[in-house]
Amino acid sequence: MSAREVVETLTARGWMLVTAESCTGGLIAAAVTDVPGSSRALDRGFVTYSNAAKMEMLGVAEATLATHGAVSEPVAAEMAQGALALSHARIAVSVTGIAGPGGSGQKPEGRVCFGLATGDGVTTQTVEFGALGRDAVRRASVDHALKLVLDALG
Amino acid sequence: MSAREVVETLTARGWMLVTAESCTGGLIAAAVTDVPGSSRALDRGFVTYSNAAKMEMLGVAEATLATHGAVSEPVAAEMAQGALALSHARIAVSVTGIAGPGGSGQKPEGRVCFGLATGDGVTTQTVEFGALGRDAVRRASVDHALKLVLDALG
Repeated sequence: MSAREVVETLTARGWMLVTAESCTGGLIAAAVTDVPGSSRALDRGFVTYSNAAKMEMLGVAEATLATHGAVSEPVAAEMAQGALALSHARIAVSVTGIAGPGGSGQKPEGRVCFGLATGDGVTTQTVEFGALGRDAVRRASVDHALKLVLDALG
Repeated sequence: MSAREVVETLTARGWMLVTAESCTGGLIAAAVTDVPGSSRALDRGFVTYSNAAKMEMLGVAEATLATHGAVSEPVAAEMAQGALALSHARIAVSVTGIAGPGGSGQKPEGRVCFGLATGDGVTTQTVEFGALGRDAVRRASVDHALKLVLDALG
């Protein structure tokens, strides 16, 4: 489990993390807070499952949701930037995807978009995990998000 | 797992849930969103791990934290009421506790305070799970929180 490594790396650097989660629904924050001492590493977490939550909690623009859909890199970017701005954290990770079962419109099951924001800006990426099943897609998304945080801290 | 029952009961009633989590760190939201179709049942979740997060995300009063401490029924009440007010949900559940390892000041490991808010008001309770270990206290807290929601919907 890399959550411990994330907590240790954050703590060593004196940085805190903030999470903005849609399809993972709190699993990233839960993984981090499973580590004793994580209160020094996690400031807070936003579980923005609905579009209303993405807009109201994180300031995602309605136009971005309407143009690109909730599962998109522009939305992931705005989620991460919003979380960073609305916290005391120095690094933010965001996840929005289609855990399944089934796809959504033209977007396939297993597509997950990630955002990573720091004071240096925001980066995004999309991973096609495929139709692994809801539980496996969510777990793979947590692992990938933690890896993005570790890489950014590296 | 009673998360499925919670989602089915919420969906049948047309109500949405909001979570406000400290020691469970997102596990309640994660349990609910593990159920397919949970987008009709979970509006959003607040992971308020730090005191700053409790105040800034949920409007918990600094005086309540200073007087009673973060792990207290008054703080659990304000977390649940804040979450209800700051969402489109009809029912809010909150958790703040000491998952361990070790206690905090005069408060023992395993003490967890819960809040449950609806339009009818807010109720709180404290459970002493004891020194079961961090993981077991967190899991027991999730189960208890889901049971509180189900009981309130019953």
